[in-house]
Amino acid sequence: MAKAGVIGATGYAGVELVRLLLRHPHVNVAAISSVSFEGQPLSEIYPSLYNICDIICGSADEVIDACDVVFAALPHGLSQDTAAACVKAGKKFIDLGADFRLDSPDDYREWYKCEYKYPELHDVAVYGIPELFRGDIVGKTIVGNPGCYPTSVALGLMPALKAGVVKTDGIVIDAKSGVTGAGRKPTKSTHFPECNEAFSAYKAATHRHTPEIEQTLSKVAGEQVTVTFVPHLMPINRGILSTMYLKLKPEVKAESVRALYEDMYKDEAFVRVMPRGVGVDVKNVRCSNYCDIQIYTDEHTRLLIVTSVIDNMIKGAAGQAIQNMNLLFGFCETDGIDMIPPAF
Amino acid sequence: MAKAGVIGATGYAGVELVRLLLRHPHVNVAAISSVSFEGQPLSEIYPSLYNICDIICGSADEVIDACDVVFAALPHGLSQDTAAACVKAGKKFIDLGADFRLDSPDDYREWYKCEYKYPELHDVAVYGIPELFRGDIVGKTIVGNPGCYPTSVALGLMPALKAGVVKTDGIVIDAKSGVTGAGRKPTKSTHFPECNEAFSAYKAATHRHTPEIEQTLSKVAGEQVTVTFVPHLMPINRGILSTMYLKLKPEVKAESVRALYEDMYKDEAFVRVMPRGVGVDVKNVRCSNYCDIQIYTDEHTRLLIVTSVIDNMIKGAAGQAIQNMNLLFGFCETDGIDMIPPAF
Amino acid sequence: MAKAGVIGATGYAGVELVRLLLRHPHVNVAAISSVSFEGQPLSEIYPSLYNICDIICGSADEVIDACDVVFAALPHGLSQDTAAACVKAGKKFIDLGADFRLDSPDDYREWYKCEYKYPELHDVAVYGIPELFRGDIVGKTIVGNPGCYPTSVALGLMPALKAGVVKTDGIVIDAKSGVTGAGRKPTKSTHFPECNEAFSAYKAATHRHTPEIEQTLSKVAGEQVTVTFVPHLMPINRGILSTMYLKLKPEVKAESVRALYEDMYKDEAFVRVMPRGVGVDVKNVRCSNYCDIQIYTDEHTRLLIVTSVIDNMIKGAAGQAIQNMNLLFGFCETDGIDMIPPAF
Amino acid sequence: MAKAGVIGATGYAGVELVRLLLRHPHVNVAAISSVSFEGQPLSEIYPSLYNICDIICGSADEVIDACDVVFAALPHGLSQDTAAACVKAGKKFIDLGADFRLDSPDDYREWYKCEYKYPELHDVAVYGIPELFRGDIVGKTIVGNPGCYPTSVALGLMPALKAGVVKTDGIVIDAKSGVTGAGRKPTKSTHFPECNEAFSAYKAATHRHTPEIEQTLSKVAGEQVTVTFVPHLMPINRGILSTMYLKLKPEVKAESVRALYEDMYKDEAFVRVMPRGVGVDVKNVRCSNYCDIQIYTDEHTRLLIVTSVIDNMIKGAAGQAIQNMNLLFGFCETDGIDMIPPAF
Repeated sequence: MAKAGVIGATGYAGVELVRLLLRHPHVNVAAISSVSFEGQPLSEIYPSLYNICDIICGSADEVIDACDVVFAALPHGLSQDTAAACVKAGKKFIDLGADFRLDSPDDYREWYKCEYKYPELHDVAVYGIPELFRGDIVGKTIVGNPGCYPTSVALGLMPALKAGVVKTDGIVIDAKSGVTGAGRKPTKSTHFPECNEAFSAYKAATHRHTPEIEQTLSKVAGEQVTVTFVPHLMPINRGILSTMYLKLKPEVKAESVRALYEDMYKDEAFVRVMPRGVGVDVKNVRCSNYCDIQIYTDEHTRLLIVTSVIDNMIKGAAGQAIQNMNLLFGFCETDGIDMIPPAF
Repeated sequence: MAKAGVIGATGYAGVELVRLLLRHPHVNVAAISSVSFEGQPLSEIYPSLYNICDIICGSADEVIDACDVVFAALPHGLSQDTAAACVKAGKKFIDLGADFRLDSPDDYREWYKCEYKYPELHDVAVYGIPELFRGDIVGKTIVGNPGCYPTSVALGLMPALKAGVVKTDGIVIDAKSGVTGAGRKPTKSTHFPECNEAFSAYKAATHRHTPEIEQTLSKVAGEQVTVTFVPHLMPINRGILSTMYLKLKPEVKAESVRALYEDMYKDEAFVRVMPRGVGVDVKNVRCSNYCDIQIYTDEHTRLLIVTSVIDNMIKGAAGQAIQNMNLLFGFCETDGIDMIPPAF
Repeated sequence: MAKAGVIGATGYAGVELVRLLLRHPHVNVAAISSVSFEGQPLSEIYPSLYNICDIICGSADEVIDACDVVFAALPHGLSQDTAAACVKAGKKFIDLGADFRLDSPDDYREWYKCEYKYPELHDVAVYGIPELFRGDIVGKTIVGNPGCYPTSVALGLMPALKAGVVKTDGIVIDAKSGVTGAGRKPTKSTHFPECNEAFSAYKAATHRHTPEIEQTLSKVAGEQVTVTFVPHLMPINRGILSTMYLKLKPEVKAESVRALYEDMYKDEAFVRVMPRGVGVDVKNVRCSNYCDIQIYTDEHTRLLIVTSVIDNMIKGAAGQAIQNMNLLFGFCETDGIDMIPPAF
Repeated sequence: MAKAGVIGATGYAGVELVRLLLRHPHVNVAAISSVSFEGQPLSEIYPSLYNICDIICGSADEVIDACDVVFAALPHGLSQDTAAACVKAGKKFIDLGADFRLDSPDDYREWYKCEYKYPELHDVAVYGIPELFRGDIVGKTIVGNPGCYPTSVALGLMPALKAGVVKTDGIVIDAKSGVTGAGRKPTKSTHFPECNEAFSAYKAATHRHTPEIEQTLSKVAGEQVTVTFVPHLMPINRGILSTMYLKLKPEVKAESVRALYEDMYKDEAFVRVMPRGVGVDVKNVRCSNYCDIQIYTDEHTRLLIVTSVIDNMIKGAAGQAIQNMNLLFGFCETDGIDMIPPAF
């Protein structure tokens, strides 16, 4: 049994991670930490865990000491010292924040107004979407766990870009996220009466996930990809649906694209290319690590339309982090994250 | 006082129309009809109207006889005979269905699998978006009240297309609608446990509003416009948000586009170009006849992003129908539809 | 036209009041105030009001100076000075807070931890449920506008208690409120992901509306009434449903109770005793000033079950305040508050 | 591994049962059936199961043949023949319907308008709430799995009634259920726009779960118990909260009641008596087999208030059925149903 710990366990991604780790067959949750709630049992903050996980929140240092693998679910900038401490102590580190996602320090500076304090850490770090970069993850020490939106986009677009059937400029990504994506902190825009029966776009073309999306898609395509990315807030708890619009290259037959998707994902446990006629829905992946994909072609405008859905807190955060841990430790990739989405 | 009647009063658009007409200062609701509920008071189907509107549902003929202006909220194909009867009887006819929206009989046949039974009626009919075609509406006998999605799209894109600042091909329209758009009839996809905490695209690139959208945009642009239109179902009762992506022409300065929008809508009572930094939200127009618009430009991809919101049942149906009636009868255009959207 | 002003206009009750007053036929909104947003237009806080009500928030003193009638929607304790200033200046004052609801200074002290600073004001004040105390309201200077829960309870129980068909002890009130009842300030319990898909009781048998409920019911019954009051939070924006359980006196025939209710409310514009078999639903009174009531009797336990629904922000706050104003000024009682609830 | 089958697998309780059984460590899902969808894979009806459970729906007979334990999730009346067939074939039978819940044929006839076709089956049948009747369940052949409301009520009231600290007459049960309780079939009252932002009581004092509740409580109390039961429909997918009001006997100290509850449930895996000050919430048990309980006393009226929550589809249906199966087969009682409720 590996000893796992979560730093920032009282945030939404943190507590979801704890919940999943508690049922992982090869892991013990050895320690958790929280700056805001140090000294309190986790179940005091989340009564859903009463009698199930009454572990006391300690400090980050205590977590690093006690564990073989450390997950951090922190605001950007704050994971760097922890990562350095883990590397020094010979522990694996999986960062659910943004500090190990971008290759370029310039991108990080521009979008997050932060500096890479330990550039050398990025040599032992990897960007962790297993379905795209599985081979690179095994053996690494630090995993930059991807953002929720970038996960849904990368899985949705990889086959088309890798096969080169679409143009790489002017990709439109219209994404919709549930409110847990905004985190645990109450704000005006997440206050129930403001958010319920509401729907809006936010940070149109200025969201921080844009450079991460372009970085991943460019790697996959083998050339520079540009996207226009507009996220929206949906009045539901969990889930991301990304609707993406790409220009088919002139010679490409619509029919061949579906075959491409089915083929590229045929061995993946967590990606489902849905049968023709079955649209994807965020509810169909809720509380699971699945990513469902459906594609359409608009013949009269020659656009390829790709829809992909994930649970933003699982495949978009805690579930994918565990999937990465499974790779690092040589566990079965589906261990602890093979939950079946409930039908309702 | 004009005598108004509603055919199909027990559907969602119908009952909303009745509700608004009951408070119109220059109208009496003289008669209503329903095939499914003939002989029953409207308040038996909608207890919210108990003691407010206990009118008995009669037949379509009774409505035509009793009224100066007849509204029909019927499935497509069924308004044609009613329209003919109204014209013969010298009554005004406002169709909330699809039978008088498309200019081309071929489009109607292709998308609705129906024929225009009385081609001559289309000579006295007009497509009723007052903000775009006000001059054409006055004096007409029949109004084809626009679809909900096309209204949100046309109002959102008119200034850019009319001014010619964007290209007319490959416009992407990612639209989201509340569930009332699906009507009153219970179905699997609108069953609460299926629809709540869910989000999905439907009829991607095959929705019947596509030709109506292209027809209107082409008129406005003065050249053929093509769009890719993907609607989505939001788990809320009311509202449409359309997020639209257009290619800015090379020479166009992003800054000038906002000025364009503000200028073209400066005298419109129901269109609000929101100040920079204030995103539109379906909740801000709920239960009102407003259309709110916000625009963004993505400089790195040179796309113009337009977001527009309406209440699908008011500006997208009953409210716009009354606005058209006001034009036909020379009432003040805002009469009966100047409701202020509640803040929550 | 009377000049009306709202102190605390940026809270939920305040902004709803402004929205309704803007469409009142005999009132102008002359001034509004807000401590938190002084100097800002109301539409900056509520974009739904953009171009509709861009009045700048001023100070409470400015409102008193400018207006004939002053509404205050403030936390308890803060209305007393305002009330005194209004009385001195000869203005009418309608308090949506709790400072003029309780007759007994001891109750006020016990439940609100506050003192009555100006006991003499209570001589010119009245508790404003028009359907119960209409005659007492006319001519008064200060109105204590009732709490939302007490309104739903008092209207639901008046006929049974007034006629003396039920016992006055051990009345059980199980009430459910939408989230706007908790106000505009974001908190953990009103954060969307905490509140959505959730349902809970709160302040069981300790809610501050308990003494107000018992005071009103005791007046109506002519003897001391005791209740157990348990409120719950519903994941919807608006509405209160109170389900109330009372012991029928032995001799009372169930059938006669319905007749009682119908008779006592037959002339009321805003109370609807629903026909047998038609249950009440918060949706049927949404955005309206109606209170709907349905009664049942459980013969095998001899309990009378009364269900009543209101919109907590209208009949439970802003609408009833305007109804009281209409009485004070001799307007038609339904002026400005005859909105028809939308069917969805 | 036991071979399990589900008759009526495409209803909501049925599909939830399949989902849970698929992850049970000692069970294989050997066959499922559906009258409406015979011949179709389950994943065609529920795309959430695509690639996870593509088993074809067969006939009830095929299920009985193939399995050691047969679950039936059918409308009342339809389980009797299946039960008889199972008994004849030596299979265990767990009925999620109402055919084996009531001891009295008269009650069954009165409330369900049905006859017990095989009275002898009731001799080998047991009413399955493990926490109350564990000893009786082991060794039985047929289990009548309790209704959702009765489960929440029985667990909430057992300690008080068993200890005799409350009176047994005039118990008030105000219960609230999520919409999945109404089943999979779309109806007007479960149509999203009717149900969303709505809240109502239904079947006040006439719901079929009333005799089942009184039967169980009477057994526990050792004397006849009468209740007034009023269910309500909440606009959420899952969960039941029952708020219950009981008269404390004169001599009973409020303080002692909490100790009673804690003591009686101290060894139960699935019942959590929450700490003082921590209210129960349906969200805290969602997707789990837990029942959370909190109690209050209203000293001024001497009422005991008990609130209990369950997930209506798990502890109120599929989870409890599996718990019963675990008892019948000698598995660990928590096997396959130890899911941790997600925090959001």
